[in-house]
Amino acid sequence: MRIHLRPLTRAAFLLWLMFASLFSSLTAHAAKRDFEMNIEDTRITLVEKQQYHTFAFAGQVPGPLFYVDEGDEITVNVNNLTALPHTIHWHGMLQRGTWRQDGVPDVTQEGIKPGESYTYKFIAEPSGTMWYHCHVNVNEHVALRGMWGPFIVRPKKPTALEKKVTKDFILMLSDWDSKYANKPGFGGLPGDKFDYFTINGRSFPDTQPLRVSKGDVVRLRLIGAGDLVHSIHLHGHVFQIAFKDGFPLTNPIHADTVLVGPGERYDIIFTADNPGRWMIHDHVDTHTMNGDRPHGGIMTVVEYTEIKHDDAWYPWKNKKFQPNFYYEESLKKGPGIYTDDVFKGQLIQ
Amino acid sequence: MRIHLRPLTRAAFLLWLMFASLFSSLTAHAAKRDFEMNIEDTRITLVEKQQYHTFAFAGQVPGPLFYVDEGDEITVNVNNLTALPHTIHWHGMLQRGTWRQDGVPDVTQEGIKPGESYTYKFIAEPSGTMWYHCHVNVNEHVALRGMWGPFIVRPKKPTALEKKVTKDFILMLSDWDSKYANKPGFGGLPGDKFDYFTINGRSFPDTQPLRVSKGDVVRLRLIGAGDLVHSIHLHGHVFQIAFKDGFPLTNPIHADTVLVGPGERYDIIFTADNPGRWMIHDHVDTHTMNGDRPHGGIMTVVEYTEIKHDDAWYPWKNKKFQPNFYYEESLKKGPGIYTDDVFKGQLIQ
Amino acid sequence: MRIHLRPLTRAAFLLWLMFASLFSSLTAHAAKRDFEMNIEDTRITLVEKQQYHTFAFAGQVPGPLFYVDEGDEITVNVNNLTALPHTIHWHGMLQRGTWRQDGVPDVTQEGIKPGESYTYKFIAEPSGTMWYHCHVNVNEHVALRGMWGPFIVRPKKPTALEKKVTKDFILMLSDWDSKYANKPGFGGLPGDKFDYFTINGRSFPDTQPLRVSKGDVVRLRLIGAGDLVHSIHLHGHVFQIAFKDGFPLTNPIHADTVLVGPGERYDIIFTADNPGRWMIHDHVDTHTMNGDRPHGGIMTVVEYTEIKHDDAWYPWKNKKFQPNFYYEESLKKGPGIYTDDVFKGQLIQ
Repeated sequence: MRIHLRPLTRAAFLLWLMFASLFSSLTAHAAKRDFEMNIEDTRITLVEKQQYHTFAFAGQVPGPLFYVDEGDEITVNVNNLTALPHTIHWHGMLQRGTWRQDGVPDVTQEGIKPGESYTYKFIAEPSGTMWYHCHVNVNEHVALRGMWGPFIVRPKKPTALEKKVTKDFILMLSDWDSKYANKPGFGGLPGDKFDYFTINGRSFPDTQPLRVSKGDVVRLRLIGAGDLVHSIHLHGHVFQIAFKDGFPLTNPIHADTVLVGPGERYDIIFTADNPGRWMIHDHVDTHTMNGDRPHGGIMTVVEYTEIKHDDAWYPWKNKKFQPNFYYEESLKKGPGIYTDDVFKGQLIQ
Repeated sequence: MRIHLRPLTRAAFLLWLMFASLFSSLTAHAAKRDFEMNIEDTRITLVEKQQYHTFAFAGQVPGPLFYVDEGDEITVNVNNLTALPHTIHWHGMLQRGTWRQDGVPDVTQEGIKPGESYTYKFIAEPSGTMWYHCHVNVNEHVALRGMWGPFIVRPKKPTALEKKVTKDFILMLSDWDSKYANKPGFGGLPGDKFDYFTINGRSFPDTQPLRVSKGDVVRLRLIGAGDLVHSIHLHGHVFQIAFKDGFPLTNPIHADTVLVGPGERYDIIFTADNPGRWMIHDHVDTHTMNGDRPHGGIMTVVEYTEIKHDDAWYPWKNKKFQPNFYYEESLKKGPGIYTDDVFKGQLIQ
Repeated sequence: MRIHLRPLTRAAFLLWLMFASLFSSLTAHAAKRDFEMNIEDTRITLVEKQQYHTFAFAGQVPGPLFYVDEGDEITVNVNNLTALPHTIHWHGMLQRGTWRQDGVPDVTQEGIKPGESYTYKFIAEPSGTMWYHCHVNVNEHVALRGMWGPFIVRPKKPTALEKKVTKDFILMLSDWDSKYANKPGFGGLPGDKFDYFTINGRSFPDTQPLRVSKGDVVRLRLIGAGDLVHSIHLHGHVFQIAFKDGFPLTNPIHADTVLVGPGERYDIIFTADNPGRWMIHDHVDTHTMNGDRPHGGIMTVVEYTEIKHDDAWYPWKNKKFQPNFYYEESLKKGPGIYTDDVFKGQLIQ
């Protein structure tokens, strides 16, 4: 009989393995992630002396990083400490069966009034580069008041390409109108003139370098958080447009420039195989201005660790490096909800 | 001899079948579709009290729906009842062998003078989401005077994906400058400020819900009919960008946001599997304004029939529903040329 | 032993063949291409009487055509004869191992001062539709002063589709602000109003026809050289979007309209199978203006040689044809560096 028992035992074992693996893939990463987040009147500095009154999530612009696993249960209790109503829309989240958590005023809920709180609860799905933002008076709150942050959902089944990534950066692109810097509750009218342009809330030269080393596989998660279309150009490398709005392209597109519209996300991936000092910037020429001063705006430098940065004329020769300006340190740590002083502004009371 | 005759007979029969089938595929759907269309000075209402002087095809904005079969013979007699010259360009039509029917003033014909008529005659080819518009002074006539309408060509060989569609909607996106509302013959200068933004000629909250039921496969035919780029974002669903300019993509792109430029068409398709109340809107924040008032512009709600819409604060709680605002009723009826009172303005005499 | 020797000889011969072929593929086309290029204050005419003060490469706008083979060794000595500093960025060139030739002021080099010279030296790689432009104060120098030209790298391994091309045209798209026409050193501020729009530095009706014959396979190399997004629409044909930024798409997209952002390049390919007179133009309506006059800007006509162009009302009935306005004659000649009087302006001293 043993000769018959053995295969059965083996089959049972294999079956058990399959179930265990299935169960594990469905539940292993499922975690509960709770967060308490204030919305606060906060003054941030875009560049040099240009400050801006924002309604900042957790007092920072961009808001805290949500880095969670696909399937995680997210609970966010929001306290509105500002003088205007707000909501949070979790841009890209399917909200399957939870449409009332979608954060649209007068459609899925009433706006959260000043002094009030609201708890959002939903499952993180699908995976990819997502974001969150206020959905009240978006022309002002999103376009001018910094009410946005990154929401990255780690996939259960990463693509072959993303598995190779060694450096992961988030770049949120947005636009500002200095005329309204100190006029909360106003601004964002059709035809208004944007005159400051930022990556993660800062303009060149107050952005930070993207530090890489030869051999790195680099992922840039570009998020169109503002009102304008940005045309992001990387020097010295070919990248693959690998993901759009969090979803992998069947055939990634090779390019050196990518148009990023409001609300869109593009994950571009390239191999760091060409040591040097390489610009990455918006090719909309007027988006490289700080007001009326050129060589600013949406612009930064990919710095290879192999290359010295001591040319006398290099403006970042003595730059104070702030790691995590692109959330790279937090992303390395794995899932969690991360605030960071690098993005904190000054509380306005 | 019969043993030899039989195969021959069978071959002849098969040959006949082949010819018949070929003939049928070339002619079965080929219909003659004639239409008489006036261009009329017409006052339409974009939203609330904001009216606009248009040169309306058949007195409506958007113009009548042309829903025809691939290969149909189209004849349109146009009567220009306005005070300015016009033409009609059938955007996307190949005009194979009929370039003089392409409707470009001073290139394929002279503009149709006030009080005069012109007859366009051409074959509907290729299939897909096309449109028509005036080609005289497009900066004013197309960008500001509502001279556009949808032209849908039903394919002989639909794709597997489009065969599954159960709800078919047309959304024409455009932009307006209130300064010129009552100044026909003027406007559309470089740098002019657009301050109203519409879907099928109406701004939120005067747009209509997109009504679906669980299980529907929904197609939205997005048509960039105006001067600006729009970034259309759908909540709560992943869609496939399935067609560009009427042509199927080899690999549809999964996304939640799509950039639609002037002249472009994107057919996005999604499964209605998530009952709720879901926004769809332009993510260019300032395009959700009606002049200086937020929560307007290019914005509407996907309403599932399974969900009650009776929240006290829901602005569309008591909304008077106008079926066919997205041409969905006409598209259901099959090929034809459809006018609709829902789009009719007030004749200006 | 001979029986064993023979196969060895054959293997050696095959090995030699492989090496030779490899060597040949690496070197056969590798040429040294040297060029001396001035940057000069130059007045060009956009259209009719609208002139513009440019800092022109070799005194022409667009600059000279660099048409080189993949792997060629390029040396360009630049003499800055203007009153402001400049550099040249070779947009799309990988600069593998030569990052200091990338032409970015204060990042890879100091700006070339007035009266000074600089020699760029690099390998032409990768292949495709590339371009070059100044990288100093791009808001003015690129957006308003015509500091750009085409850089086409012929591939070692062309795609099957591009092998079929019989007519090859380059179209550089850009935008101008007449307010600054005579104010070199000024302009290009955020919110400034562009009011002239050009293909290769000219606006309709001063552009040139794209002349084709039935049966031609036509390639249009669209280059976004300005500050704005352009939506290029071709009448009467379906085109394939075959290359983006010089790289072939795995699955070319069929379309009649393509959005071209600043810095992007799209190579669109179509078969000339429909004799006629066909518009190709920017579908951003206000980009077909010359200041406040309609029917201008980014607009031209595909003229088939089979069709007479003698309609009394056709504005180009007696048009003086300038071959090479789209660099088509130079491209026919094969690799080289080409200046052309058709683009030359008037030296300002």
